[in-house]
Amino acid sequence: MSSKSWQQLCADRKKKQVDSIPKEWIITVSTDLKQSVIDVPAQCGLLSPLEIEITETVDLDILLDKLSTGIWTSAQVTTAFYKRAIIAQQLTNCLTEIFIERALARAHELDDYFQKNGKPIGPLHGLPISLKDQFCIKGLETIMGYASWIGPVSEKSCVLVEILYDLGAVPFVRTNVPQTLIWGETYNHVFGRTTNPYNRYMTPGGSSGGEGALLALKGSPLGVGTDIGGSVRIPGAMCGLYTLRPSYERLPYANARNAQEGQESISSTLGPMANSLSAVKRFTKSIIDAKPWKKDPLVVRKEWSSREYALEEHGNGVGMCFAVLWDNGVVKPHPPVRRALEIVKQSLEDAGHKVIDWEPHRHLEIYKNTESIFAADAGQDYRVECAKSGEPLIQTMSPDKDAHPYNLFESYAKTIIGKPELLSAYDLWQLHKEKRVLRKSHLDHWEATVARTGTGRPVDAIIAPVAPYTAVPHGCNSSGRVLYNVIQYPRLCLRRFPSHICR
Amino acid sequence: MSSKSWQQLCADRKKKQVDSIPKEWIITVSTDLKQSVIDVPAQCGLLSPLEIEITETVDLDILLDKLSTGIWTSAQVTTAFYKRAIIAQQLTNCLTEIFIERALARAHELDDYFQKNGKPIGPLHGLPISLKDQFCIKGLETIMGYASWIGPVSEKSCVLVEILYDLGAVPFVRTNVPQTLIWGETYNHVFGRTTNPYNRYMTPGGSSGGEGALLALKGSPLGVGTDIGGSVRIPGAMCGLYTLRPSYERLPYANARNAQEGQESISSTLGPMANSLSAVKRFTKSIIDAKPWKKDPLVVRKEWSSREYALEEHGNGVGMCFAVLWDNGVVKPHPPVRRALEIVKQSLEDAGHKVIDWEPHRHLEIYKNTESIFAADAGQDYRVECAKSGEPLIQTMSPDKDAHPYNLFESYAKTIIGKPELLSAYDLWQLHKEKRVLRKSHLDHWEATVARTGTGRPVDAIIAPVAPYTAVPHGCNSSGRVLYNVIQYPRLCLRRFPSHICR
Repeated sequence: MSSKSWQQLCADRKKKQVDSIPKEWIITVSTDLKQSVIDVPAQCGLLSPLEIEITETVDLDILLDKLSTGIWTSAQVTTAFYKRAIIAQQLTNCLTEIFIERALARAHELDDYFQKNGKPIGPLHGLPISLKDQFCIKGLETIMGYASWIGPVSEKSCVLVEILYDLGAVPFVRTNVPQTLIWGETYNHVFGRTTNPYNRYMTPGGSSGGEGALLALKGSPLGVGTDIGGSVRIPGAMCGLYTLRPSYERLPYANARNAQEGQESISSTLGPMANSLSAVKRFTKSIIDAKPWKKDPLVVRKEWSSREYALEEHGNGVGMCFAVLWDNGVVKPHPPVRRALEIVKQSLEDAGHKVIDWEPHRHLEIYKNTESIFAADAGQDYRVECAKSGEPLIQTMSPDKDAHPYNLFESYAKTIIGKPELLSAYDLWQLHKEKRVLRKSHLDHWEATVARTGTGRPVDAIIAPVAPYTAVPHGCNSSGRVLYNVIQYPRLCLRRFPSHICR
Repeated sequence: MSSKSWQQLCADRKKKQVDSIPKEWIITVSTDLKQSVIDVPAQCGLLSPLEIEITETVDLDILLDKLSTGIWTSAQVTTAFYKRAIIAQQLTNCLTEIFIERALARAHELDDYFQKNGKPIGPLHGLPISLKDQFCIKGLETIMGYASWIGPVSEKSCVLVEILYDLGAVPFVRTNVPQTLIWGETYNHVFGRTTNPYNRYMTPGGSSGGEGALLALKGSPLGVGTDIGGSVRIPGAMCGLYTLRPSYERLPYANARNAQEGQESISSTLGPMANSLSAVKRFTKSIIDAKPWKKDPLVVRKEWSSREYALEEHGNGVGMCFAVLWDNGVVKPHPPVRRALEIVKQSLEDAGHKVIDWEPHRHLEIYKNTESIFAADAGQDYRVECAKSGEPLIQTMSPDKDAHPYNLFESYAKTIIGKPELLSAYDLWQLHKEKRVLRKSHLDHWEATVARTGTGRPVDAIIAPVAPYTAVPHGCNSSGRVLYNVIQYPRLCLRRFPSHICR
């Protein structure tokens, strides 16, 4: 344990972060702006017209096209996004690691390559990419919201970062997370709280909440989050982004840090977060085309399939049948969420598709099984990491002051599973047996929809809410959305719309 | 618990099995034949010349060709193999469930279909298939070597059996296993001990030892075993078969019974066992082409790849580089095994390939990690199943009489990991972290061979012994071969030759 108190450790680290911001990039924010700050980046005067144009080019295909043809240099693009990210940091506290010199040196290296060779180095040439504070970069800390993780720097980059470098990308900031990663909000003792740029009284969601706030402010063209119980999808929905939580063991997680590392019953996955669908595809395809299974033994050896992407097994995308999960049989969504589902339904029908109601299937059992697995160590993993510095385990996401009066005494998970007890390996295996039965049952339930679709196939995809509400005040996000983590279907979150689930 | 003692339960069930053998299929075996009985099936007089021809058609492509063109009917083929399986049973005690009427009824159903439609019903039309005593068939028991599992019949078939029926196969016998499945030999209190037909003083290996003995006597054209620590490969090597232990989550295990069910740290996989390489391919491709992921949510959605089968990423099979694992740095193989490795090396070189030495990498650490995971419940799973009938947990595979004088006081696993203790979920997660580090380390070790191969690629495949010895006397098989289960590479066992490991 360090000789410093955990409070001092955190304060010193936070000061180091603040000091790393160039003085000329510091902006003045009107104290009237308590809620939405979404228009500040374009209006604060720090960004040049070109920097505004660059950072507001949300279609990643267009941005990459300009980078790969030399219309914009990587240094120009990286500087523009870095400045905007620093604005976002001052507005929402979304960043952890800031390493401007290093990122710009990398950008210049790529520009030099382009100049010499007249071609891009790879499919993500020159592109700045933001990373959740789990993806280690050689020579930098990976603090992940723990005071005890302040200090040591990584001896090597994680596999994802290695591949991103190979593809020509410029990792340029890392983004904030909640302590333990197991909250759907974003607050920790080291870097503090991230707020939602659409309304700073609200949470951006979590655990990839730093990415959510940063991307909503267009402070990054592409971010990478992780998701075990909604951690990519919640910020996606609360900040209005496109995100993908892919199937597990599809994208390379090796050598990244994690909470409950070694918990393999329900796997965390990493996925892209962005302001365009093209970014989601571009990231996923680029990583898979790089054959990540050569560096991460857990990744499935499966190439990108253009046939699958073209929905070959789904009538080539014509005359499909969707199902809407209006509610899960336990919690009813708020009117704005319901309205979004209705808009999606109407749009699908207008496009010639059929839409039927999804029949909820064993949600409470699935929820209970999942929460029991997450609690199988009775929090020992979290306590061990906290004990190293003496930092207390955070018990609520509610702020000390200005908290919303609606106080959650007890989380839904605790209501369902009771006080967590340390399970034995044998007890855990019994939960796995139950999980397998539930997964099989859910698959059979899906397959049985063939009787209702009229397409000769089961339902092609499910449209479901990410959460029963839109963004909520800090401390008030409690509802679980673990169903599709247990079932292990990939899940695509469409900008300000509900999730789309496919198999 | 039944009102009968476990001894009585076992004795009654064994009698029921003996009674299910038609009197006219009972053979007389010379008492001189203590050791090899490999020639008995063809010489005992029970099989007609056509039945001998059918059962000795080891190339599955030829057998399926004759079935799918109506040259041989399914009834003819099923009867021939059933008779030979019953001979094998009398020689080696390799079977558990015997259900002649049911299998023949299925065969006639397929013949009727062929007669009416002039074409086969699927790619395995009319083919009898033997199954390890884990693969449930609707209406039959699945005893898997536990007295307490005698009685209840399955309400539905497991997914593998459902698919086999869809493909036109005729599941016709189930085969013997050791109690708990965790032995590399084959003995339990219900059905007794299976012996090796090449030398009945020896074990056929295990845990898929019933399949091993049955197939060695050509009592089945294709069998299905399972493998978590060598259970397909050991009988493959000790009985001289072609077998494949595929990657995990490739073939459908759902709704089959298992030991330590819910143990997901290191997965058991199912794989084909046969007398021909064509059978190994035919089975694997047929099952994958049936899209097993529509019935088993754990199976990876990945089609059969003709390009991968043609070794597209391995120079199209020309001028490859293999590595021989002569020993694992801990145990040195016996001379016959060493000789087999040398024969393989020479053959590969004669065929224009390069062969280098494999450098063993962290075998003891991998072995210790695996055995610790298997023992994480301190045997609770096994004890629970035994306690239901009062049957004792078997402590040795040594026979009560005629045991080999070389007595193994303590297994290698116990020497390495000490007395097993019930681990907590948290402890288990720490083992998983270690496992992931070892897997990553081994992958990097493999990739690094690119410096030694001369092909521009890492080693294309490793040639390794299945065990350090050939078949051993009952009770003497102790050596572990879990390396490639932890690492999760598929492993192909070539008839009487060492294993071939690919990635």
